[in-house]
Amino acid sequence: MKAKTSSASLAISTDIILPSDTNALNGLFGGELLARVDRICCIAAQRHSNSICVTVSVNNVSFGKVIPLGSMMTIEAKVSRAFNSSMEVIADVFLEDRNSGERTKVNEAIYTFVAVDEHGKPHRVPEIIPETKLEKMRFKNALQRKQLSLVVAGKLKPQDALELKSLFE
Amino acid sequence: MKAKTSSASLAISTDIILPSDTNALNGLFGGELLARVDRICCIAAQRHSNSICVTVSVNNVSFGKVIPLGSMMTIEAKVSRAFNSSMEVIADVFLEDRNSGERTKVNEAIYTFVAVDEHGKPHRVPEIIPETKLEKMRFKNALQRKQLSLVVAGKLKPQDALELKSLFE
Amino acid sequence: MKAKTSSASLAISTDIILPSDTNALNGLFGGELLARVDRICCIAAQRHSNSICVTVSVNNVSFGKVIPLGSMMTIEAKVSRAFNSSMEVIADVFLEDRNSGERTKVNEAIYTFVAVDEHGKPHRVPEIIPETKLEKMRFKNALQRKQLSLVVAGKLKPQDALELKSLFE
Amino acid sequence: MKAKTSSASLAISTDIILPSDTNALNGLFGGELLARVDRICCIAAQRHSNSICVTVSVNNVSFGKVIPLGSMMTIEAKVSRAFNSSMEVIADVFLEDRNSGERTKVNEAIYTFVAVDEHGKPHRVPEIIPETKLEKMRFKNALQRKQLSLVVAGKLKPQDALELKSLFE
Amino acid sequence: MKAKTSSASLAISTDIILPSDTNALNGLFGGELLARVDRICCIAAQRHSNSICVTVSVNNVSFGKVIPLGSMMTIEAKVSRAFNSSMEVIADVFLEDRNSGERTKVNEAIYTFVAVDEHGKPHRVPEIIPETKLEKMRFKNALQRKQLSLVVAGKLKPQDALELKSLFE
Amino acid sequence: MKAKTSSASLAISTDIILPSDTNALNGLFGGELLARVDRICCIAAQRHSNSICVTVSVNNVSFGKVIPLGSMMTIEAKVSRAFNSSMEVIADVFLEDRNSGERTKVNEAIYTFVAVDEHGKPHRVPEIIPETKLEKMRFKNALQRKQLSLVVAGKLKPQDALELKSLFE
Repeated sequence: MKAKTSSASLAISTDIILPSDTNALNGLFGGELLARVDRICCIAAQRHSNSICVTVSVNNVSFGKVIPLGSMMTIEAKVSRAFNSSMEVIADVFLEDRNSGERTKVNEAIYTFVAVDEHGKPHRVPEIIPETKLEKMRFKNALQRKQLSLVVAGKLKPQDALELKSLFE
Repeated sequence: MKAKTSSASLAISTDIILPSDTNALNGLFGGELLARVDRICCIAAQRHSNSICVTVSVNNVSFGKVIPLGSMMTIEAKVSRAFNSSMEVIADVFLEDRNSGERTKVNEAIYTFVAVDEHGKPHRVPEIIPETKLEKMRFKNALQRKQLSLVVAGKLKPQDALELKSLFE
Repeated sequence: MKAKTSSASLAISTDIILPSDTNALNGLFGGELLARVDRICCIAAQRHSNSICVTVSVNNVSFGKVIPLGSMMTIEAKVSRAFNSSMEVIADVFLEDRNSGERTKVNEAIYTFVAVDEHGKPHRVPEIIPETKLEKMRFKNALQRKQLSLVVAGKLKPQDALELKSLFE
Repeated sequence: MKAKTSSASLAISTDIILPSDTNALNGLFGGELLARVDRICCIAAQRHSNSICVTVSVNNVSFGKVIPLGSMMTIEAKVSRAFNSSMEVIADVFLEDRNSGERTKVNEAIYTFVAVDEHGKPHRVPEIIPETKLEKMRFKNALQRKQLSLVVAGKLKPQDALELKSLFE
Repeated sequence: MKAKTSSASLAISTDIILPSDTNALNGLFGGELLARVDRICCIAAQRHSNSICVTVSVNNVSFGKVIPLGSMMTIEAKVSRAFNSSMEVIADVFLEDRNSGERTKVNEAIYTFVAVDEHGKPHRVPEIIPETKLEKMRFKNALQRKQLSLVVAGKLKPQDALELKSLFE
Repeated sequence: MKAKTSSASLAISTDIILPSDTNALNGLFGGELLARVDRICCIAAQRHSNSICVTVSVNNVSFGKVIPLGSMMTIEAKVSRAFNSSMEVIADVFLEDRNSGERTKVNEAIYTFVAVDEHGKPHRVPEIIPETKLEKMRFKNALQRKQLSLVVAGKLKPQDALELKSLFE
């Protein structure tokens, strides 16, 4: 199984925010954003693994800025690291100014997917080769994040989470 | 007002087909495809014109192949030609094979948008500079298509549709 | 297979525009209109052919006027002409004034459907008998439109599109 | 204020049942039917009153038969009787056999609407002139139904519900 | 088959009203409320019967008060009485003031469900034991309502509707 | 500002999974679950703070088990801890067996909300008084989780995250 670059998994989705996507304050409803990011991240994971993928967990999503009705929003997702059958996928959410064409990053989301066969059984996926500086940093931190979630879930003793432990020394 | 390349307006959207998007035969419901293409084409027109854009007409959409439940579909839209305040936008629809990663073109759609200000008044947009062979062909044919739709609408006499007339000689 | 009148296929649908149907300017979202027209036209084609029908192409839709939130919209679709297994369906879209009850035509749409059996195989459909003046004109022009789309698709040489060619002479 | 016929308020809506409209048994989800009938009845009430109308109550809806995925369903609604500012609207729901074209009544629904001005204040509406035998029967029974709902709501003593009382004598 | 209390079937659902749920007056769209109440009542019926349940009829829903965009709405449904295979379910709809936390009842709805097996065949359900004063009153009136709907449907002669008849004496 | 118990913020929502909520494998679509949990957690936060609340982040959601089409799902959310203007809200997701009535926990989600005034400005919220053993544990861990997310975001040095650091000693 040959390792693949992070950028080979890139999935992009642009859309316009319609009234049916908004909350009572005329911004994109948070739950709607979570649902869309889930779909784009799933595509990145499927592109990396050439397999059906299912969401295992949402590890972190921060809502930095309101995304107003009528705006153009772009979600870009890439697999940041693969572990056996699971993949961490990071999505960046951008807002695009209609007049200047300039785009600003407004949100970041981290999801985990697992590759499964038709019967839902997990299987191995290729490793990730990070290339850019950002990809390399995300690749490195993915291990800490994985240990964190295992510690939080009580499946790993803090003392055994070596990557994580090193942070606090 | 400086002319812009066709590729500068490129808008991309990838998505997974869910059961709520399908028809009774478990393929993407035609109307849902039309709605999505409309949104991506609108973004291409807004990127080209740096302005609010509204749909003026759908000129042609052909449904070549069923897009099955669960598949990954990508829509790519670019402005093919600009006429004063209106823009012809062409979208290509691709299906992506999960196992091989290969993608196949399944549909093509041609929409027209007009750039308007906050009060809905149309205004001029930059011209298009086609670069690739395909962009140049679409740019050239856009004029014939425009004449066609004017002839069909009874707003242009066939004899005065010079670009079109030349086809039949 | 007995020919049937155009009016025998008439399908009517009235609805109220809700916020979930609108764009950022509080009018009916273009894509939503395309989706609804697709469904009503499909019913007209199914009534004519007594068969499952699938959308083959959208040939022309013009968006003449904004359809505001809260308005009553009626779509009326009829098969205008049948060709072997395919049918051209024309839909007229009307807006109805709540106070006066008066209705105005705001859009017109032309779609093509094909009649298929349970396995998706196309089969013959009855011919259309146009009755009113408008039905007769649409019946006649349907042939030109069909030739046009074949020419545009590169499947018919302009010189062989006789109905169309005659327009330019 | 001139009385109007019941048939002048007729609102018709035809649609195809898509997967997004169904319940877990592949039939039209009951709540979705209630929502659609509400909209068509509202249009009948607005046509009769030339006014904004809001739903006051659903008096009776019976679900006689499953409406399967992919079927063509038609809702026809007419005002059956008017009382000052309120109107009883009856909707008949039909299923249409694709092969034979035959249609069967599958449901019946009775809703009440009130005509309001822009500030939500109720105002008088024209009286109804029933014409057909069915319209006349529904017009007559509407009064009994009105008394019934007042009795049920504790707003009318059974002894004072004269139309209703006569049924039991 | 052991009788169960009414409160054992209690189903609760709280939600926030989003723009996609509203009508043109920025209040919850009546049809959307009917759809949600249908689902919560169905859960109450399924909890009582430990079986799949399908909606048989909507007997009465009154829309007392507008439910504005952004408000918190709670629906509480309980089986009020069981008859062989059918169950009357009553839902109370509450609005909750964000600042004071106070809640007000705004609507009441009465639906009937029937318990069916996998093939849609109705089967017996346990009887209901009403406990509170309100539950006892609703249990008692359920019989009158059942007779009413049978009389209205022409399936029971008014003279034989003993519970109902007694009201008018 | 008087402290309030965790249980005073409890928000409950029960629903039936319909086809329009599912993914291509006939289970609840992950994004749809995230959207619903977001709404119920928001209600818990609004009940605690008597204020408008907006989602700040999703800290952790794990998808333990498929939630099949047709199943009854209950989401229960409570504020676990308050920090100045922000609140950590934990939602437990349960699946209910139709035949036995038994319910099983299938997912757990942690979201953070902030209380804002009409202009979006954050304001203080009451403290939380945990009562049960589970509430006390979640209250205690909330601080570690807060430090974790600050460390992950680079806003707190690991050495200064005292609660967290103690885990690794």
